[in-house]
Amino acid sequence: MPETDPLVIFTPSGKRGRFAAGTPVLTAARQLGVDLDSVCGGRGICSKCQITPGFGEFPKHGLTVAADALSPWNAVEERYKSKRGLGAGRRLGCQARIMGDVVIDVPPESQVHKQVVRKAATARAISMDPATRLYYVEVAEPDMHEPSGDLERLTAALKEQWQIQSIEADLQVLRKLQPVLRQGGWKVTVALHQGNHDARPRLIDLWPGYDEGGLYGLAIDLGSTTIAAHLCSLTDGAVLASAGVMNPQIRFGEDLMSRVSYAMMNPGGDREMTAAVREALNSLSQTIAAEGEIDASRIVEVSFVCNPVMHHLLLGIDPVELGQAPFALATSAALDLDARDLGLSALNPNARVYVLPLIAGHVGADCAAVALSEEPNKSKDMVLIVDVGTNAEILCGNHERVLACSSPTGPAFEGAQISSGQRAAPGAIERVVIDPATKEPRFKVIGCDLWSDDPDFAAATAQTGITGICGSGIIEAVAEMRMAGIVDPSGLIGSAEQVGSPRMIAEGRTHSYLLHDGSAAGGPRLLVTQTDIRAIQLAKSALYAGARLLMDELGIDRVDRVVLAGAFGAHISPKHAMVLGMIPDVPLDKVISAGNAAGTGARIALCNRAARDEIEATVRAIHKVETAIEPRFQEHFVAANAIPHATAPFPELAKIVQLPAVSFNAGGSGEGGRRRRRG
Amino acid sequence: MPETDPLVIFTPSGKRGRFAAGTPVLTAARQLGVDLDSVCGGRGICSKCQITPGFGEFPKHGLTVAADALSPWNAVEERYKSKRGLGAGRRLGCQARIMGDVVIDVPPESQVHKQVVRKAATARAISMDPATRLYYVEVAEPDMHEPSGDLERLTAALKEQWQIQSIEADLQVLRKLQPVLRQGGWKVTVALHQGNHDARPRLIDLWPGYDEGGLYGLAIDLGSTTIAAHLCSLTDGAVLASAGVMNPQIRFGEDLMSRVSYAMMNPGGDREMTAAVREALNSLSQTIAAEGEIDASRIVEVSFVCNPVMHHLLLGIDPVELGQAPFALATSAALDLDARDLGLSALNPNARVYVLPLIAGHVGADCAAVALSEEPNKSKDMVLIVDVGTNAEILCGNHERVLACSSPTGPAFEGAQISSGQRAAPGAIERVVIDPATKEPRFKVIGCDLWSDDPDFAAATAQTGITGICGSGIIEAVAEMRMAGIVDPSGLIGSAEQVGSPRMIAEGRTHSYLLHDGSAAGGPRLLVTQTDIRAIQLAKSALYAGARLLMDELGIDRVDRVVLAGAFGAHISPKHAMVLGMIPDVPLDKVISAGNAAGTGARIALCNRAARDEIEATVRAIHKVETAIEPRFQEHFVAANAIPHATAPFPELAKIVQLPAVSFNAGGSGEGGRRRRRG
Repeated sequence: MPETDPLVIFTPSGKRGRFAAGTPVLTAARQLGVDLDSVCGGRGICSKCQITPGFGEFPKHGLTVAADALSPWNAVEERYKSKRGLGAGRRLGCQARIMGDVVIDVPPESQVHKQVVRKAATARAISMDPATRLYYVEVAEPDMHEPSGDLERLTAALKEQWQIQSIEADLQVLRKLQPVLRQGGWKVTVALHQGNHDARPRLIDLWPGYDEGGLYGLAIDLGSTTIAAHLCSLTDGAVLASAGVMNPQIRFGEDLMSRVSYAMMNPGGDREMTAAVREALNSLSQTIAAEGEIDASRIVEVSFVCNPVMHHLLLGIDPVELGQAPFALATSAALDLDARDLGLSALNPNARVYVLPLIAGHVGADCAAVALSEEPNKSKDMVLIVDVGTNAEILCGNHERVLACSSPTGPAFEGAQISSGQRAAPGAIERVVIDPATKEPRFKVIGCDLWSDDPDFAAATAQTGITGICGSGIIEAVAEMRMAGIVDPSGLIGSAEQVGSPRMIAEGRTHSYLLHDGSAAGGPRLLVTQTDIRAIQLAKSALYAGARLLMDELGIDRVDRVVLAGAFGAHISPKHAMVLGMIPDVPLDKVISAGNAAGTGARIALCNRAARDEIEATVRAIHKVETAIEPRFQEHFVAANAIPHATAPFPELAKIVQLPAVSFNAGGSGEGGRRRRRG
Repeated sequence: MPETDPLVIFTPSGKRGRFAAGTPVLTAARQLGVDLDSVCGGRGICSKCQITPGFGEFPKHGLTVAADALSPWNAVEERYKSKRGLGAGRRLGCQARIMGDVVIDVPPESQVHKQVVRKAATARAISMDPATRLYYVEVAEPDMHEPSGDLERLTAALKEQWQIQSIEADLQVLRKLQPVLRQGGWKVTVALHQGNHDARPRLIDLWPGYDEGGLYGLAIDLGSTTIAAHLCSLTDGAVLASAGVMNPQIRFGEDLMSRVSYAMMNPGGDREMTAAVREALNSLSQTIAAEGEIDASRIVEVSFVCNPVMHHLLLGIDPVELGQAPFALATSAALDLDARDLGLSALNPNARVYVLPLIAGHVGADCAAVALSEEPNKSKDMVLIVDVGTNAEILCGNHERVLACSSPTGPAFEGAQISSGQRAAPGAIERVVIDPATKEPRFKVIGCDLWSDDPDFAAATAQTGITGICGSGIIEAVAEMRMAGIVDPSGLIGSAEQVGSPRMIAEGRTHSYLLHDGSAAGGPRLLVTQTDIRAIQLAKSALYAGARLLMDELGIDRVDRVVLAGAFGAHISPKHAMVLGMIPDVPLDKVISAGNAAGTGARIALCNRAARDEIEATVRAIHKVETAIEPRFQEHFVAANAIPHATAPFPELAKIVQLPAVSFNAGGSGEGGRRRRRG
C-alpha cells in the first residue's frame, strides 16, 4: 500500500497497516489478522464487530488522529443504537470506513478468542478478620409513647445484643431500613463495616430475618495491561471465581508513560482513561459475580492493588505529576472509600473499597501487596523479590531492612514489542527447547499439554493453531538460543553458515531464527529476530540493574533467595531466567515462584483488617530507591546487557549450564543495540 | 360550564374550574384569574407560561388524572425544547390543551407576582464556632529521595503549623490537590470541616496562597409550604441574603398528610417529591448566592430544619410510616451528610449538611430549632412556645421539664382554604379594624403603609390592587368581627338585620361579611364567609387544644409567657390571637413574637458546632406527647371551638376587651361546624 494511504493501528494487538481511504475497519482488521469478531459478515446486524476509535494525540505512535479519521456515523449504526444500544464512543467495524490515520481499539467483547489472563489465585490460607460482617438482631417495635427512630432502636439492639456501641448509616441504607425491618417482623440481619482508624461501624446493608446469603469481596489487581479479580467469600476466604480482562486504557498507550503523555497532551484525557477503566471494572464485576453464581449486590468489599499511575487514574486524579521528576503522588496512604465514589455501580450500593498504600512515585500498591504476601520484612535470610509485569517492582532485604524500587522493563516480557509476540492465549508458544547439536526446536503451546514433537501435537492444536510467542516463550527461546550457540554473549544472532542451520534467516545485515513455519497450512511463520533479542536484553538489563542497585544500597553482593512474583513470574523457568541474567546468581533451588503474590496480597487485605494496619506500617518502613535519578542504575543497566551479563561472577549458573563461547560480531555490523531510557 | 367538562385545578392557588375539552391551559388560567405569566400572547415564543401537569392519584382532590388529560406534546413545544430547553415534566401553557380532569402546577418562575416569603432572618447575634474553618499552611515540596504524597505533606504541615493531628480527604478534593499546591507555590488555604462525634477533620476544599474569599453557609427552613434560606458568613454569622420559594411539593398535596397519601397511592411518588424539593433547593441556592454576590462554591455548610415528613422526603426516605400509627421515624437523630448525597449540586462539591434532630413522628427538627433558639429548657418561668405554620409545633415547660407536641392546624392560618384567602404577597389584606358602631372596616395591604381610609390609599395600591386576605389578615378580620358583634360566640355570622349593616351578604342560609368590594374597578369582592369562620375555628381549636394538653401533662392551668414563633407568628396581633382564643390567657405584654425562631435555630446550628451537641442533648430530654392518640386532645379541641373558648376563664383578656354578648343562632341552621380530624 502507498505511504500516502491512511495508517491504521489496532490495539491491543498493536497490528498496523495502510489502507485505501474508504476501507471498512472490519476489512482492514481481517487483512491484518486482527481478532475482530463478525457473525453477519459485515451487514450491520450482529454488532459483534464493535470497535472504539481513538482521537487526538497518540505520542507513542507519533500519530494525531483527526475527528474525521473515520466516515461519519451512519444510518445503520443509528438504527442499531436505537434498537439495541451501542456504548459511548463505539462504532460498528463493518460500517465505519477509514478516512485518515486512526487508532482503533478492539474491546474484549469483540474478540473471538477470549484472553486467558494468567492471574489465577495462588492457593493460600488466609486468616479471616474481614472489615464487613453480618449480625443478626431483634429490634424493638416502635412505641408512640416513647417515640424513637427505627435506626435508633436498631442501634440500641446492636448495643444490647452485640456490644456494638454506635453505628453510622448513610442515606442509601436508611431508605431500606423501614421496609426491611417490617418485612422481617423486627428481626433483621445487618452487614456492618468496621474501617480502620477510629471510625464508627457503618451500616452497609440489611436483610429481613436471619439471612444466609453471605457476604463477598473482590480482590482486584489493576495492572497496566490486565485487570484480574478474585471473588472471595468474606466468611472463609474461599475463592469462588477468578476473572480477568485487558485494561481498556491500552488504547491510550501500552505502557504507563504513554498514558501519562496521553493525559498531558489531550485535555480531559485523564478523565477518558478513568472512565474506561471504571467501565471495565463494572463489566468485570458482573462477569465474576455470574461466574461465582452470586448476586453482585452481595459484594460489599473491594481491595485494590495497582501501580501509582493506575492508582491515580482509578481515583480520577490526573497522573501528570507522575510523568516528571520529582514524581510526586497526590497521596500515598491507604484509602478507605465508597465504591460508588469510584463509579463501581455493579456492586452493593454501599460497598467499601480499600486501596493499599503506595510506596513511592514509581513503586505502587502492587508492590505493597507483594510485601504483604511475601513478608520480606520478616525474612531471616536476604531475599530478592521481583514482580515482573510491564514494570518490574523489586524488593530486597530481610527483617532488619527492606528496600524497594521499580524498573522500567517495558512490555517485552509480556510478549509485546516482539515480532511474533502475543499475549498469553491458546495457541501461543510458552515453552521452548532447542537441541544444541541440530539447532532444531521443540515447543509447547498454551491450551495443549503435548510437546511439538509429539505425533498427536498437530491434531491437538488444530483448533487453536500456533499463533505467536508469549512472554515466557520468548524468554525460553532467547535463553535456549544462547545455550545452543545461536546467539553470542553480545546478543547477536549468527548466520546460517556461522550457526550451521537452515533455520537462520538473513534479514538485511541481521539474522533471525525460524522457530516455527506454519505457512504451508496457511499459518504464520514465527521468527525470533535480532530486534526481539535486543528488546529482551533491554528488559532483562533493566530488571537486573534495579535488583543490583538495591543490593548496592544494602552493601551486599549476593542474595540468599530470589522470589519471582507476578502472573508472569509463575511461568518463568528459573534456569532460563538465570541464563539470560534477569536475576542475580543464586542456587537454582533458591529461585522460587510466589505465584500471583500481588493478587494474594490483595486477598489478604480484603479478608483481614489487621493486615491493612500491618501493610500500612510496613510500607512506612520500606526505604525507596529512585532508579530514574541514580547514575549507578545506568551503569548496571549497560553492564547487564550481555548474555550472561558482565557485572558479577555467576558460579551457581556455571554449576548447571555451560554457555558456548561463540562470537558472531563481524565488526562494524549495522545492527547496534539501542539503549532504552525512561521518560 | 357543564359538569361533564374536564375539571382543572391549579396549584398552588387552588383555583379550579371546568372547561370545554380543547381549551388551552393558558386560557383556563386567565379565566380563573390564576397567576400564569405570558408575554407573547400564547404564540409559543416567550415560554413564560410553563406549567407542570400532575398525573396519577390526587386523593386530596378526589381526582385521578389520566396520562392523556392534556393534548399530546406538540411541534411548537418540541422546537422550543430543542432550542432553549424545557425542564422535565414541563409543558407550555399556551400549547397544552385540556382534554380531561387535570391538576396543573404553576411553578414560581411562571408567576407574574413574585411571592414574598415572610421568613426574614430575625436579628440575633450568634456566637461563632463554625464546623468549617480556613487554615493557611505552607507545605514542604516533594523530595524524590524521601517520597511522600502531597496529601501526606499537607497533613504534616497542618500538624506542625496548626496542631491538627490528622485529616480525611475525599476524591473530590484529592483531584484538586496537586494543581492547587503548585499554583500557590506550596502555600495554600484549606477549608477543614470538623463534624461532631469523634470524626477526623475533613478537607473540604483548598485555594492557592492566602485566600480571602471567605466561607459561607445556608440555614434552610424547609417548610411544607415555603422553603426559606439565609445565606450566612461563617466568619461572623452575618446574614448576606435571605430568599424563599414555594415548596414545589404543593402540587402533590397542600398539607403533609396529602403528600404522604400521594406517596402511598402512587408508586415512586416519594421519589418524585424528593426530586421536586431538591430541584427547588438547587435553584434557591443559586438565587441566594447571586443575591449575596458570592460564588456558590464558597457555600460549604448547610443546616436544615424541617418537619418529619419534609425531613424524610428531603433525605429520599419514603414517608409512608409517618402517615399511620405508630408514626415511626426512619431515624430521629441529627445527621451529618455530604450535600451531594442530597443532590445539592449548586454548592461546593464537598459541602456538608447538618440536619437537626427530630423530636417525634409529628414533631420535627423545626421544633428542635425553635427549642435551640428560644431555650425553654433554660427558662425560669413557665413558657409556652407556639410555632404556627401548616402544622403548629408546641413546646411548653421550663428549666425543670419541657414537653412538645404537634397539632394539625391546617393551612387556614396561612390564608389557604379561605374563600378570599391568599398567601402573603403584595395586595393581600394583612391588618383589619372594624368599627363596632358602624361595622365599617378599614384595612392595610402588604406593600403599602397606608390604611384603606387614607385619601392616598387608592393611588398607593393602584399597582398591586387589593387581591385577597392573607393569614394574619383573616385572623384579625375574624377577631374584629367578633369584637364588633358581627360574629357570635358560636362562630355564626349575623344577618344584615341582626347586625344592622348592608355589608352582611346572605348566601343560602349563612351570611358573609363584605370586607372590600373592588368590583367597580374590575377587582374582586373580598368576603369573609361562614365557611371561613369555621376553618379558622378549627385551626385555632387545634392549636389551643395542643397547648392545653401539654399544660395538663405539666399539671398547670396558666403559663407565665407565650412566645409566638414562626414566620406567621411574627405577623399575628397578640390581642386578636387572644380574642380568638388561639392561645391561653396571659397578660398581653407576656405575648412575645420570637420572629422566625426556627430560622434562627437553623442559623445557630449552622454557625456553632457546640450548639449542635446542645440541641441533640436537649431533644433527647424533651418529653413528647402524641396528640393523635390522646382522648383529652379531642375534648379540648371541641371545647375550644367557641369564641372565646369555653375551657378556662380568661381574666387577662377581660382586662383589655369586652366581647359583645350576641347570639345569631336561629335554631336548626343548616350550617354546622364540620369537625376536622387528622389522618
